[in-house]
Amino acid sequence: GQSRLPGVKTTIFSVMSQLAAEHGALNLSQGFPDFECPEHLRELVSEAMRAGHNQYAPMPGVPLLRQRITEKVLALYGAPVDMDREVTVTCGASEALFVAIQTVVRPGDEVILFDPAYDCYEPAVDLAGGRAIHLPLRAPDYRIDWQQLGDAIGPKTRLIVINTPHNPTGSALSADDLDRLAELVADTPVFLIGDEVYEHIVFDGADHQSLLRREELRQRSFVISSFGKTYHTTGWKIGYCIAPAPMTAEFRKIHQYVTFSIATPMQHAIAHFMADPDFHLGLSAFYQQKRDHFRSALEGSRFALLPCQGTYFQLLDYSAISDRPDLDMARWLVEQAGVAAIPVSVFYADGGGGGTKEDRILRFCFAKSNDTLDRACERLRQL
Amino acid sequence: GQSRLPGVKTTIFSVMSQLAAEHGALNLSQGFPDFECPEHLRELVSEAMRAGHNQYAPMPGVPLLRQRITEKVLALYGAPVDMDREVTVTCGASEALFVAIQTVVRPGDEVILFDPAYDCYEPAVDLAGGRAIHLPLRAPDYRIDWQQLGDAIGPKTRLIVINTPHNPTGSALSADDLDRLAELVADTPVFLIGDEVYEHIVFDGADHQSLLRREELRQRSFVISSFGKTYHTTGWKIGYCIAPAPMTAEFRKIHQYVTFSIATPMQHAIAHFMADPDFHLGLSAFYQQKRDHFRSALEGSRFALLPCQGTYFQLLDYSAISDRPDLDMARWLVEQAGVAAIPVSVFYADGGGGGTKEDRILRFCFAKSNDTLDRACERLRQL
Ligand SMILES: CSCCC(=O)C(=O)O
Ligand SMILES: CSCCC(=O)C(=O)O
Repeated sequence: GQSRLPGVKTTIFSVMSQLAAEHGALNLSQGFPDFECPEHLRELVSEAMRAGHNQYAPMPGVPLLRQRITEKVLALYGAPVDMDREVTVTCGASEALFVAIQTVVRPGDEVILFDPAYDCYEPAVDLAGGRAIHLPLRAPDYRIDWQQLGDAIGPKTRLIVINTPHNPTGSALSADDLDRLAELVADTPVFLIGDEVYEHIVFDGADHQSLLRREELRQRSFVISSFGKTYHTTGWKIGYCIAPAPMTAEFRKIHQYVTFSIATPMQHAIAHFMADPDFHLGLSAFYQQKRDHFRSALEGSRFALLPCQGTYFQLLDYSAISDRPDLDMARWLVEQAGVAAIPVSVFYADGGGGGTKEDRILRFCFAKSNDTLDRACERLRQL
Repeated sequence: GQSRLPGVKTTIFSVMSQLAAEHGALNLSQGFPDFECPEHLRELVSEAMRAGHNQYAPMPGVPLLRQRITEKVLALYGAPVDMDREVTVTCGASEALFVAIQTVVRPGDEVILFDPAYDCYEPAVDLAGGRAIHLPLRAPDYRIDWQQLGDAIGPKTRLIVINTPHNPTGSALSADDLDRLAELVADTPVFLIGDEVYEHIVFDGADHQSLLRREELRQRSFVISSFGKTYHTTGWKIGYCIAPAPMTAEFRKIHQYVTFSIATPMQHAIAHFMADPDFHLGLSAFYQQKRDHFRSALEGSRFALLPCQGTYFQLLDYSAISDRPDLDMARWLVEQAGVAAIPVSVFYADGGGGGTKEDRILRFCFAKSNDTLDRACERLRQL
C-alpha cells in the first residue's frame, strides 16, 4: 500500500529531543518547560479523580471549562462567545488544528500558510486533499506582507492559517495587521484559523491581537489555543477551538469521531484553576524575565539576537560562527556544544530561501529554569 | 461551505446520556461504569504528576507503557510485538480507529463493516474518501457469515473492520472464526482492523480471540484496544494500536499530526498499574457476575434476553411489550420508565432490517453498581 503522507518524516521536535537525550545535551529544542506546573493545579486533578470525574466528559467538553474559556475571551478580547455552541475542548491544540482543517478543506482547495510554518498544518491539508500555498516570512522581523497575501488569495483559496504570536519566529500581529487582514478577506468566503497557543506570552507591554477581537474576523475563524503552554502542562494535552456556531457544528462532527472527548479530570482541574486569572495574566511578565535573562546571558557571544515579541522561543543567527546549513548546525551543536535547538529551515517549504543568510538561524526555547539557561549560554558563549 | 460529513449527527451516546440526565433516568445507555476506578490507579496518576511527568510524552507513547502492552499481548495471545516499532499510544481507541482508517483508506477504496457497526467507523471512511460496504449480522447470534464476506471481498476492498467482543451485540469470534478469516484474506492485500476494546470482558470461560493470535492475521492488522473499559476510566482516553512496523510507521505519520502525544501522567500510572496483571485477568469474572445479576433481575419481565458472550452490554428484545421502532422505544423508556438504553437500529446502514423483529431490540449497559441494576430491572419488570 502507498503512503497517505509520503513526504512526512518524524517531526523535528521528536528528532531533536531524542538527539538531546542521547547526548545528554541541554534540551532547548522542543517547546516545553523544564520546571513544574503549579502544585495547586496538580492537586485539583487529584481532587477531580477522587470526586469521581473519571468517565467520558461530554463530547464538546466539561461545561464549567467551556464557561471559563468564554469568560476569559470576553474579558481579554471583548468577544461574546457562546459556551454551548461555539467552544469545543480538544486533545491539545494539535487535535483542534487537525480537525479545523478537516472541517473546511475539500479536495482541490487551497490553504495559505506562512513559512516558517508550524509543521502540523500541511499534512492535515494533504490528508483533506487540499493544496498548501506557502508565503514566506523573512528575517529579521518575519512580518506578513499583506500585498503578497492579497495577490495570493484567489478563487480556490479556502483557508488562511494565522499563527500569532508566531512559532518559531516570535513575531506577533499588531492591531493594524488585524485591520489589514480584515480588509483583505472582507469580500471573500475564506475561512481563517488563528493558532494562538502563545496568547498569554506577549512582551514589552503589547496586547495579544487575537482574531477574536474583530467581529468580522471572528465570524470566519477557528481560534485555537491550549492550556499546555499557559499552565506548564504540555503533556496534559488539553486545548480548545472557538468558532461560530455553524462552523463549530461541523467541527464537532469530526471531533466526535477523532477523539470523542478529552481527559475529564484535567478538564475539571483547569476549570477550577481558571477561576483566578492571575496566573495567565502574569505569564507574559514571567516569560519576559526569562527572555531577557537568556538574551543578557548571550552578551559577548558570537550569536546575533533576533527580535522576540512573544512565544517562549528566541531565534539566534549563527552566521558569525559557522556557515553550516542549520540542520547540520543543530546536530553539531548537540554533539559538540551539548545544547539542542531547532533548525528553522525545516519550516520552509522551499528549504529556507536557498542558502541565504536567513538560513543560519536556530530556534532556542527559553521556557527553562534560569540555571538551565545559564549553563546553555555559557556553552554558547564559547563558540 | 458544504459539510464534509453531511449525514453525521450527534452520536446516539451523547443524545441518550443527555436525555437520561434531563429526565433523571437511570443511564444504562452510554457505555461507562457508574463505579470508581481502583484507588491505587488514581494515586499513581497523582504520583506521576508529583514526579514531574507533566510535559509531552514521546510521540509513540511512554516506553514503559509500551513495554507493558507488549508483555501483556505476549502472555495472553502469544504475539511477539516490538514495543518500539509496533505499538502507539493514542487518545483512546477512538483516535486509534480514526488514524488507522486514515492510514490505509484512499479515495475510492472499499471498507467492509459489519452491521450493527460502532458509529465511528463510517465517518472516518468517508473523510478518507472511501466507501463503506455494510454486511448485516442478525439476531439472535450476530455471527459473521463467512460465505457472505467472501463474496463481498473484491478488487476494491482495502480494509475489513472486525470488532470482537462486539459492541453493541455482545457476540464474540471463536477460534474457528479466526481460521475462516485467515483463509478468506490469505490471497488478498486486504488490511484488517481488530477493534478489541472489550478484550478483557469475555464470558463463560471462553478466551478472547484476538487477531494477534494468528501470525498471518497480525501481519495485516491494526489491533486496537483501550484502558478505559479495562480500568473503569473511560474519561482518561488512553488507548493504543498495535500493527506491524511498516504499518505503524504510516500510522504514526498521521497520529503525530492528529494529537502528537497523549496525557503523560496517565500513561505512567497505567504502566505501573499493569505490572500486576490480576486486575485485567479478573475483569471477565467481575463483569460476568454483573451480567448474570442483570439477567436474573429481569426474570419475570416481558423482555427477552439475547445471548451475551462478552462486552458489558446486554441486548433485550422488547417485542412482547411494544412494536414501537427502537429509537421511539428508547425515548419512551427514558420518559415513561426512567431507564435509558441504546437503540440498535442506528448502527445499521439499512435501518436495521426494515421493520423485522430484529428491530425491537435495545442495548443496556450493565457496567453499573448492583444497586443501579436492581433499580433499573425493577422498573423494567413493570412493563
Ligand atoms: C508537539 S511537540 C512541539 C512542541 C512545540 O510546540 C514546539 O517546539 O514548537
Ligand atoms: C464514545 S461514547 C460511547 C461509549 C461506548 O463505547 C458505547 O456506549 O458503546
